[in-house]
Amino acid sequence: MPRYKLTIEYDGTDFVGWQRQDNGPSVQGAIEAAFKKYCQADITLFVAGRTDAGVHALGQVAHADIPRDDRPEVVANALNAHLRPKPIAIISAERVGEDFHARFSAIERAYEYRIINRKAPLVLDRNRAWAIHHPIDAAAMHDGAQALVGHHDFTSFRAAECQADSPMRTIDEITVTREADHVVMRVRARSFLHHQVRNIIGTLKLCGEGKWTRADVAAALAAKDRSKAGQTAPACGLYLVAVKYPA
Amino acid sequence: MPRYKLTIEYDGTDFVGWQRQDNGPSVQGAIEAAFKKYCQADITLFVAGRTDAGVHALGQVAHADIPRDDRPEVVANALNAHLRPKPIAIISAERVGEDFHARFSAIERAYEYRIINRKAPLVLDRNRAWAIHHPIDAAAMHDGAQALVGHHDFTSFRAAECQADSPMRTIDEITVTREADHVVMRVRARSFLHHQVRNIIGTLKLCGEGKWTRADVAAALAAKDRSKAGQTAPACGLYLVAVKYPA
Repeated sequence: MPRYKLTIEYDGTDFVGWQRQDNGPSVQGAIEAAFKKYCQADITLFVAGRTDAGVHALGQVAHADIPRDDRPEVVANALNAHLRPKPIAIISAERVGEDFHARFSAIERAYEYRIINRKAPLVLDRNRAWAIHHPIDAAAMHDGAQALVGHHDFTSFRAAECQADSPMRTIDEITVTREADHVVMRVRARSFLHHQVRNIIGTLKLCGEGKWTRADVAAALAAKDRSKAGQTAPACGLYLVAVKYPA
Repeated sequence: MPRYKLTIEYDGTDFVGWQRQDNGPSVQGAIEAAFKKYCQADITLFVAGRTDAGVHALGQVAHADIPRDDRPEVVANALNAHLRPKPIAIISAERVGEDFHARFSAIERAYEYRIINRKAPLVLDRNRAWAIHHPIDAAAMHDGAQALVGHHDFTSFRAAECQADSPMRTIDEITVTREADHVVMRVRARSFLHHQVRNIIGTLKLCGEGKWTRADVAAALAAKDRSKAGQTAPACGLYLVAVKYPA
């Protein structure tokens, strides 16, 4: 059966997360239901990054083998028609070989974490960013973040329920920038641990508040103890932006 | 009574517009109701720009005279508390003199019109941008827009129901730029006619599609005839970004 790679955008607010679950609507479940209407068959999706409840995606990637040999645009249009009005869109579809696997072939994942730093409650960015109402210093957050770049044991930034075999990960780049009241962290790695990005931004917030320095972030990392790092930031500020594959 | 200037953000999607009306919830009505709870008095708001149903604001400005002499932060916090969970926020409040008038003192209004130019339906930008699914050329739109800069009779870009005395307006600047699939028009003028920005972007779309040149835009302007310009673009892409007052 032909294999298709899908690039997917979704608003994670009203989903229990990517993964099909018994306790509510999932992004995977919605797209598989659209496939069922389109192909009259049960299709299983394989995904690059299983996002949690409330986490958004601009460029999630999944693949599926389907019993039809349609042009990729036809696949995307059919799925989008069946997905409507759910807040999920297939941005593009592509025919790929049998050796392509959305999760195992990925060589880089890029996430963004968005903070709105202002006194007023959020309106246009409600459910789309973390509202921090007291002033935070983005440059201090950027500086603190540099302690995490490279190959490290990220036990201090890993959820208790993380299922990865190893806590070792390599962060290629983290930047924190401010434009007016928008503070954005961008982070790239081959792969991430469960809650790693949200635990990182929750820790960098301490730097932004002037409570921690870069040395404190390095010490939290070295401690290999989740209780030594900062809080888990809310899901709503997190976006899976892109997944990269070998050319 | 002390006069306060309010800077306001709102998501216009579920409102009949800024102005209080009998046919549904308005932004003005919601803020006046919040004032009533806060001041136990009927307060009337005066606004810089009466936005239509579905139009958003990042920096709308209004003023009100109120029978309390509170610090501006207290006013903003009280209104925000009473507005919750409506998608309206008071970004800031400021004490101003009796000679300040949100509408008549304004010397510049800045609007943004956001287009998402891609095949896929909108998700994170649903109700927040105009979805144009075929390719449009932002550089051609920018070029066409330059025919409108300056002091002109904008009859061709004015809604039939426009109540302004004169169709003469001065556009200080229009730019159209693209970043990936986001095409944004930014326009500044002392004031605008009813539907002027939406009629301009609806016309520039013809340039973006290669159907019109800058000379066609100039001819439509010179015709002083609404039927010679392009369509009225959807409200959901329009944002009142800022209103400027003398220092």
